[in-house]
Amino acid sequence: MKQIDEANQEALRRMLSGDPVLVDVVPAAQAIPALKDRMILHAGPPVTWERMCGPMRGAVMGIAVFEGWANDLEAAAALASDGAFELHPNHHFDAVGPMTGMTTLSQSVMVVENRTFGNRAYCTINEGLGKVMRFGGNDEEVLERLAWLRDVLGPAMGEALRAGDGLPLKNLIARGLSMGDEMHQRNVACSGLTLRELSPALAATSSSTEDLSKALAFIGGNDQFFLNIAMAMGKAVMDPVRDIDGSSLVTAMSRNGTDFGIRVSGTGDQWFTAPVEMPEGLYFPGFTEDDANPDMGDSTIVETVGLGGFAMGAAPAVAGFVGAGAASDAANYTRTMGEITIGENPEWTIPALDYLGVPSGIDIRLVVETGLAPTINTGIAHKEPGVGQVGAGVVRAPMACFTQALEAFAESVGVS
Amino acid sequence: MKQIDEANQEALRRMLSGDPVLVDVVPAAQAIPALKDRMILHAGPPVTWERMCGPMRGAVMGIAVFEGWANDLEAAAALASDGAFELHPNHHFDAVGPMTGMTTLSQSVMVVENRTFGNRAYCTINEGLGKVMRFGGNDEEVLERLAWLRDVLGPAMGEALRAGDGLPLKNLIARGLSMGDEMHQRNVACSGLTLRELSPALAATSSSTEDLSKALAFIGGNDQFFLNIAMAMGKAVMDPVRDIDGSSLVTAMSRNGTDFGIRVSGTGDQWFTAPVEMPEGLYFPGFTEDDANPDMGDSTIVETVGLGGFAMGAAPAVAGFVGAGAASDAANYTRTMGEITIGENPEWTIPALDYLGVPSGIDIRLVVETGLAPTINTGIAHKEPGVGQVGAGVVRAPMACFTQALEAFAESVGVS
Repeated sequence: MKQIDEANQEALRRMLSGDPVLVDVVPAAQAIPALKDRMILHAGPPVTWERMCGPMRGAVMGIAVFEGWANDLEAAAALASDGAFELHPNHHFDAVGPMTGMTTLSQSVMVVENRTFGNRAYCTINEGLGKVMRFGGNDEEVLERLAWLRDVLGPAMGEALRAGDGLPLKNLIARGLSMGDEMHQRNVACSGLTLRELSPALAATSSSTEDLSKALAFIGGNDQFFLNIAMAMGKAVMDPVRDIDGSSLVTAMSRNGTDFGIRVSGTGDQWFTAPVEMPEGLYFPGFTEDDANPDMGDSTIVETVGLGGFAMGAAPAVAGFVGAGAASDAANYTRTMGEITIGENPEWTIPALDYLGVPSGIDIRLVVETGLAPTINTGIAHKEPGVGQVGAGVVRAPMACFTQALEAFAESVGVS
Repeated sequence: MKQIDEANQEALRRMLSGDPVLVDVVPAAQAIPALKDRMILHAGPPVTWERMCGPMRGAVMGIAVFEGWANDLEAAAALASDGAFELHPNHHFDAVGPMTGMTTLSQSVMVVENRTFGNRAYCTINEGLGKVMRFGGNDEEVLERLAWLRDVLGPAMGEALRAGDGLPLKNLIARGLSMGDEMHQRNVACSGLTLRELSPALAATSSSTEDLSKALAFIGGNDQFFLNIAMAMGKAVMDPVRDIDGSSLVTAMSRNGTDFGIRVSGTGDQWFTAPVEMPEGLYFPGFTEDDANPDMGDSTIVETVGLGGFAMGAAPAVAGFVGAGAASDAANYTRTMGEITIGENPEWTIPALDYLGVPSGIDIRLVVETGLAPTINTGIAHKEPGVGQVGAGVVRAPMACFTQALEAFAESVGVS
């Protein structure tokens, strides 16, 4: 239908014309005034405490202690079970969060502004690898790190960013694609590029070389530091693509560890959900698939914007890490995702594929027609609260999300 | 001949077992006690002032003013013409230098130690792009930058390195190969990895956040910062491969802008020289091939150790920069260099080629048999003194170096 194609071209135009810039780091309550006491934003579509998976429960318990709403994890769980916390998706408040995706009022959030459209999106600072809250970790070590992010690194990054004109992300990501990143499970290049852009201002605005040294070591020691920036970038770029009448493009994909949800431009903010799948992946020593929680996190916004599993061809080294086959197979993932997208991003290209642009604009009609669900590169959390990351893998979005969405979409354009 | 093959296997073993670590930055006179007043080390095999190309003359004039041996460039040229300066190759003093390769007593040099064999190699700090001394630049801006490297950045880097156990380079380069670097014309990944490793110690040992901020911005703003580290690394790795009786492997390739010279393990420190070739490349706006000086610099030590043009397959994005064809052609360069080398480096692999090791151990017999001269990725200097870089390209080592070397080598093993 011509009307749908035109709506999708407008959606793609908005998507490709986004100009995301990391502009600030502020307390979440300042970025999101609606964020009140005892309110917890989580990854994925809406979910109740009762239906929540283990690691997300672990994170809720941990963040409640962190915010001072409970004295210990047990008390936090009892409060959660009593309905003492208001639970909402990050996506409902201009935010995204990796894995469990906890966002609460006192945490520092990074602010990405889409300068083309003026909207902003928020994401917390990446905690590093292993036992961390986004993978369900919640012990003292985890909470101390969160406190340091809130009290030291967040304010330092905010001051450094405000001292300049922000960090433009479009070109930085383009460079990252030429350096082997796909921005979901491999962010080593973009993390380094971010450090080198921020470090002069971090130094110039620092009042303690000890804090500064620790901040530089923390950023430099975390190959996934950029993931959370990429996520806020993806949210900032995709939000203006919402609510275009007649557009069948996906504007968000997200999982809460229980359900996978997608949103489609032409059907507004409705979630189309289905049970999440189990990633096929590689496990850290000592862990197996029996330990794994199914797919989780808002990080699929990265695939929604054409990166992650869609840009695997840029990152042959990630193929081995996520168990996706031989390095030379990586290009096939990118080419396959080209079958369910309506365009290529001319500014985000893959040198090894002779500068093919990353596949952009997931059309739910193409997903259902081809039977090819979006490929997602993901981390894998332990299914029990309090453990952390146990591996990384590749997972498909459940096809049922797309068939449901297509039915509702068809109805919305009068072809039910 | 079995004897030659065994000698070459020993040479390759030494080459692959090298453990290069950046351990310090010190004044050149401290690293190289033989370096006296009015003594200038230059790139390539020996060359007199009379036969020196324009940019190297420009650099000699500039460095003489920098060291206080002449009041201005004209006076420096007159002194050089009168034989007032003692000119020697860097390679004769455990050193290497990019392009013109000036090394004099007061400059800071980076120290790379090969911990397997205990030898050390030295290289000055990379000045950045454009009008710089290595490309023949010699005005006040150039000399001021050299003074800052000597007085601020060099001492700061030295203090940061001495505060720890040095920066191991073998793994860092392995990571760089998975991030699109070939370590000659593309060092963006390794420069960033170096910054992130050094910056915490730079901060911890800094007494001025202003100096620190400038240092971080200088390193972070120079995508070729790592080149000089890669060169000292190459020299440190290849020096223990010298002087193996009966080995036909190349231990150094180097150019002074007039002559190209190679050294072969079995023939010791003898240079086999031939006139340098003109790179085929791409020129910066406003410049053409008519402006170009032929091939120059000690940086071909990077190819000698299996990187640069030999590792082009790791760096598809560099193919366009040096005018070497389509990005997807980059792999062909690596495969072709496999025909003139006796092994692959199992620790330096190329993900996109399913972890093929970089071609290692150039055998002069294979070069002459196949007619395939080593491929070199190189910067291009303006042919006149004082201008600077005008482009980048690909160049072949002159075949005459290898045929001469093979004759001498045959004689040395008694098969002349």
